[in-house]
Amino acid sequence: MTTSTLQVSKSPLTGKEYEIPAVKQDKEGIDAFLALHPGKKVVVVQGLGFVGSVMGLVVANALTEEYAVIGIDLPTPGSYWKIRSINEGVFPVIASDPKIELYYQNARQKKNYYASFDGYAYSKADVIVVDINLDVQKKSTKNKDLEGYEVDLTPFRKAIEAIGSYCKEDVLVLVETTVPPGTAQKIVRPLLEESLTKRGLPIDKVKVGHSYERVMPGPKYIDSIQNFYRVFAGTDEKSAVAVETFLRTVIRTDEYPLTRLGNTNATEMAKVLENSYRAMNIAFMVEWSRFAEEAGVDIYEVVNAIRMRPTHKNIMLPGLGVGGYCLTKDPLLASWARMNLFGSEEKLGQSEKGVHINDKMPVYAFDFLQSQYKASLSGKKVLLLGVSYLNDVGDTRYTPVEGFYDQLEMEGCTIHLHDPHVKYWEEKDIWINQDLDSLLEEEYDVIVITTGHKDYRSNAALLEKIKNKPAAWVYDTIGVLSNEEIGSLREKHTVKVLGRGDL
Amino acid sequence: MTTSTLQVSKSPLTGKEYEIPAVKQDKEGIDAFLALHPGKKVVVVQGLGFVGSVMGLVVANALTEEYAVIGIDLPTPGSYWKIRSINEGVFPVIASDPKIELYYQNARQKKNYYASFDGYAYSKADVIVVDINLDVQKKSTKNKDLEGYEVDLTPFRKAIEAIGSYCKEDVLVLVETTVPPGTAQKIVRPLLEESLTKRGLPIDKVKVGHSYERVMPGPKYIDSIQNFYRVFAGTDEKSAVAVETFLRTVIRTDEYPLTRLGNTNATEMAKVLENSYRAMNIAFMVEWSRFAEEAGVDIYEVVNAIRMRPTHKNIMLPGLGVGGYCLTKDPLLASWARMNLFGSEEKLGQSEKGVHINDKMPVYAFDFLQSQYKASLSGKKVLLLGVSYLNDVGDTRYTPVEGFYDQLEMEGCTIHLHDPHVKYWEEKDIWINQDLDSLLEEEYDVIVITTGHKDYRSNAALLEKIKNKPAAWVYDTIGVLSNEEIGSLREKHTVKVLGRGDL
Repeated sequence: MTTSTLQVSKSPLTGKEYEIPAVKQDKEGIDAFLALHPGKKVVVVQGLGFVGSVMGLVVANALTEEYAVIGIDLPTPGSYWKIRSINEGVFPVIASDPKIELYYQNARQKKNYYASFDGYAYSKADVIVVDINLDVQKKSTKNKDLEGYEVDLTPFRKAIEAIGSYCKEDVLVLVETTVPPGTAQKIVRPLLEESLTKRGLPIDKVKVGHSYERVMPGPKYIDSIQNFYRVFAGTDEKSAVAVETFLRTVIRTDEYPLTRLGNTNATEMAKVLENSYRAMNIAFMVEWSRFAEEAGVDIYEVVNAIRMRPTHKNIMLPGLGVGGYCLTKDPLLASWARMNLFGSEEKLGQSEKGVHINDKMPVYAFDFLQSQYKASLSGKKVLLLGVSYLNDVGDTRYTPVEGFYDQLEMEGCTIHLHDPHVKYWEEKDIWINQDLDSLLEEEYDVIVITTGHKDYRSNAALLEKIKNKPAAWVYDTIGVLSNEEIGSLREKHTVKVLGRGDL
Repeated sequence: MTTSTLQVSKSPLTGKEYEIPAVKQDKEGIDAFLALHPGKKVVVVQGLGFVGSVMGLVVANALTEEYAVIGIDLPTPGSYWKIRSINEGVFPVIASDPKIELYYQNARQKKNYYASFDGYAYSKADVIVVDINLDVQKKSTKNKDLEGYEVDLTPFRKAIEAIGSYCKEDVLVLVETTVPPGTAQKIVRPLLEESLTKRGLPIDKVKVGHSYERVMPGPKYIDSIQNFYRVFAGTDEKSAVAVETFLRTVIRTDEYPLTRLGNTNATEMAKVLENSYRAMNIAFMVEWSRFAEEAGVDIYEVVNAIRMRPTHKNIMLPGLGVGGYCLTKDPLLASWARMNLFGSEEKLGQSEKGVHINDKMPVYAFDFLQSQYKASLSGKKVLLLGVSYLNDVGDTRYTPVEGFYDQLEMEGCTIHLHDPHVKYWEEKDIWINQDLDSLLEEEYDVIVITTGHKDYRSNAALLEKIKNKPAAWVYDTIGVLSNEEIGSLREKHTVKVLGRGDL
């Protein structure tokens, strides 16, 4: 294997740089790995991101079967380090879930989780789990009009074609990626059949199914795969049976029974529908938060009163915005599918609208600050508490803090950032200062709570420090401050909370 | 009291007709009633509809205090019979809740619940509970474009003025009516102060509060008032305290603690927000149901799979439409208030949109039938199973069956109706045949399930009867038929289910 190339891939975890091999083959590595596991079924996980890398762990620690697991990702600067990292003993995902390290060390010991970039692995697979991303391209968060988007299936199709050019004729391809409804039937299966036909192989044995993950990065990362309800379907009966057989070996189906749906369109729809439901429930609250601000009402106390009703427990709270990989795009995938895969003349207009409303939340949060602050924010020094989109987790994918940050930056503010769970903000290429004490030694014009981390909730020491600083603005964009805390801060500072017109 | 008038008010329960008195006073009746209850606090309930008449019962059966209760309604053809009926021993609301009759008989025995139309009662009241309707005028359900609406506060203002022209200077006026947020502060209190001032009385003693009911007509009618969570607020501190003191005597607050909010705008908003939340969650499902139909998916199995997640338990099922007094108008009241009472330039656009989407559901249900049926429906004989908007309850207020019925009628269908809980469809002035067996002796072209009453669910005998009829269409608009039942009916009939593209 020659390595005469200038391309490198740098691990954000260790800082280590890996040269990307010029010759993109790893047959020896794969064969050597499989030689350690004669007779075992081979599961290849395609995609080593937040889902795939951990799904690989779960399969390597399957409940009722011993698998040889190969994780595959692309030899690109953004991904190659993950491959090397898995093989060298550093798991590429940081999470507060101790099971991650436990499962990883167990797999290291059993030597049954290998990572590679070579599609040759597909030729050995009994099961291929597709966990690659399928992205929606939106307009930049710097743009105030955020309603345009595009779905480009090219990378997804290429990934399936890569499988088709290597796979066994009777492989099970299990798609876990969140895809536009219709994808397994109308895209994956035809592409595989086309490849098999080109290779002179029969097309009646290949199995294609869909079962979506409900992975939640955080303290229950592994459990969100292994100990949680699953919905699945096959593109035909034998595919459905094969998916069920496989899932039963890796998921605790006695406690979390599997739900089989009528077809893969249904499972694919279920995934994007459940995320659209959440996205829409947040979007619904946006206009009510504005109304609360106008009517002198505290929207948080109103929502908490409503949540007393069991039928209304899932009503959401408003906030800075919506982030993460799912809620920000899944309604758009669905709407796109309705028109492009099923030929409907109507989009899912309400669901799309929900995404657009949510996308504009950070801009509104900035506008609210601006309108209250009255003076220009140009040149002001601002501290943002929290960069992650989710409480107590270091996940910056599509974080709404980005849109808010962009607005402050365009206004000419000096911005300092803190997040106890984020060392490196990948999307912005910013290293985060995790020492809050040192950050608080400086003076700020505005201190903004942007993520609801435990570190910022009911933290008397933090409150005392902020209280003792020179008069400033404290701006809570997600309602973490209690009335008592607000009263205490107000002795010196100006306090504003999004969605509270009573202050 | 002269009765020389031609106006009568007819009870739909007994058929009895009452002449409406020409002279609108009942001082003697009220005084005679109060003479039976010396020293007791007097509670007047304004409005004897679905909420007020039952609220009166609950107050007459208060937990920790003996009240003398007077129910007041207008001496109009639509309402006068309720006054007479209460006083004569027939409670004016039919409900499956046995507690209604129990509480009513108890009040009859104690003689502590009197009904009248004379505002003179307000002059004796310590507490006045406002339970009148505040309606939104929408376009007719016969119109396919249903988006216009108007809010006219005139009747509500007149009712408050009636109180103001009689009430004691220190009365507690407790508004339970669902009102546009801002009403207690911006309308009720100023009107009362104006009236008191005109009468030369001080305005600093009157108490105005708001606490919304969550009444659910049906088997737990009384419990939905007495054994359920309550949210309340006052227009000032003494009002809030007075509301709390009163509610503690009638509601089981040890099990269902009261929630006090910061101001009446907040409680008024909470009520319309919680109903808007439900309305919007239904509206959200409408476009997904259409997508399911296009994609060959059963939306019911998808929603049931999603409901396995605790965070998604409240996701709604689609259906024929949305009815009842609350979900069909409360988002509009809120939106109207935002613009008209708080001067916002923006309506609650998403919430309004939800109502409009829901209003169009029955028309869509008809269009779907029409598109599937292919032939003309003109002259076809159609049986509708269910007229009520709610399962197992006889409540036809704003029932979506009306919009569907109108479409069939305009198409020239012959329509037969059944509902086990509705004798008389007030809004349509139609008497309902409650004998399903005799209805099923006739032949139909289309049998439509329009309400999810238990009588129509898993009813093997009913299914057998339908199965044995000549070939027809069975159209389930709310998904009550199981796959097995559908399979059985399909041996002879054509079966269609809204939201199921897999059939």
